[in-house]
Amino acid sequence: MKREKGLLIVLSGPSGVGKGTVCGALRKEDTDIRYSVSATTRAPREGEAEGVNYFYKSKAEFERMIQDGELLEYAQYVENYYGTPRSYVEDMLAAGHDVILEIEVQGALQVKETFPEGVFIFLMPPSLNELRSRIEERGTETADLIDNRMTVAKEEIDLMDKYDYVVENDEVESAVERIKAIVTAENCKKDRLIHLYKSLVEE
Amino acid sequence: MKREKGLLIVLSGPSGVGKGTVCGALRKEDTDIRYSVSATTRAPREGEAEGVNYFYKSKAEFERMIQDGELLEYAQYVENYYGTPRSYVEDMLAAGHDVILEIEVQGALQVKETFPEGVFIFLMPPSLNELRSRIEERGTETADLIDNRMTVAKEEIDLMDKYDYVVENDEVESAVERIKAIVTAENCKKDRLIHLYKSLVEE
Repeated sequence: MKREKGLLIVLSGPSGVGKGTVCGALRKEDTDIRYSVSATTRAPREGEAEGVNYFYKSKAEFERMIQDGELLEYAQYVENYYGTPRSYVEDMLAAGHDVILEIEVQGALQVKETFPEGVFIFLMPPSLNELRSRIEERGTETADLIDNRMTVAKEEIDLMDKYDYVVENDEVESAVERIKAIVTAENCKKDRLIHLYKSLVEE
Repeated sequence: MKREKGLLIVLSGPSGVGKGTVCGALRKEDTDIRYSVSATTRAPREGEAEGVNYFYKSKAEFERMIQDGELLEYAQYVENYYGTPRSYVEDMLAAGHDVILEIEVQGALQVKETFPEGVFIFLMPPSLNELRSRIEERGTETADLIDNRMTVAKEEIDLMDKYDYVVENDEVESAVERIKAIVTAENCKKDRLIHLYKSLVEE
């Protein structure tokens, strides 16, 4: 039995927790999930590619997209814009596909206003010390920026209450398994299925 | 991170849908789930064993257990009693283990009154014709009893609204995978975890 509309799944969490790594590992699995690609004004990191990790935009292009309502959500984060192009997400959901957005916490809360029925997953570091180590290992940030990120991370963890699920990113494989389980379970939610089953009784 | 109290998972659905088969297959999997064994006054079916499928009781013994408050729920169903011994379930939950009850629909709704925080899964046949075939194949029922079961099944499907999840028992393996996913997802629910994580921020 196929429901008419797909699930919107929002994977978020503090910067540095490993959202990109977890989402990348999930994409390698054999699932029917579709992945939204965000737009950003930040520079590509080594190994990242246009249209795969992000659509890389100039500040002027990004602001034009905001003006024209082409973004489902956007946020400015450590001097760069990040946003989700609206049309891909809406088309996939309408076609009955589950779609995952991997986005920053500010953006996730914006999406929640438009899609309260979405499934909001907070990816959590095993500890704040571990989060700091991961940001430091990335080696792309100055000490001041790292301190700033840690302050923001604590504020973001306080926003966990707005989410439906918390997944600890202790090991990437375990986090991926838990996210897949959440998607499977959400597709078994009675509220999403009951109208399909009521007709069975009238056979 | 381990939460203090386990999840109570209630697997129910119309008689004949295959609750016993699905639960049996789930027990063979490597999980941390504990299985409650019900008491019943019905005669053992071929291949069933005392303390594994059920605790088999006389009517008098069962009624003594009801009197003494030793049952979490009980129901009379097609002339037999079925019930869940209370102490095992409460002990396992208190020790932090997830416990599955495989019970009839009437009993599930009783458990919901005592454990509204439980996870209620409705096992659904692919169709009513398929349900009738499964009951007929079992070969333990007269034609009148089968008609009676089908009427009850339709009433039970109308009670699906009281459940949290609906799992279609199209293939036993798929049903088992979905139930495992539901247990994993429920253990990631923010409401069950948030108090454990708030302390992280105060490190």
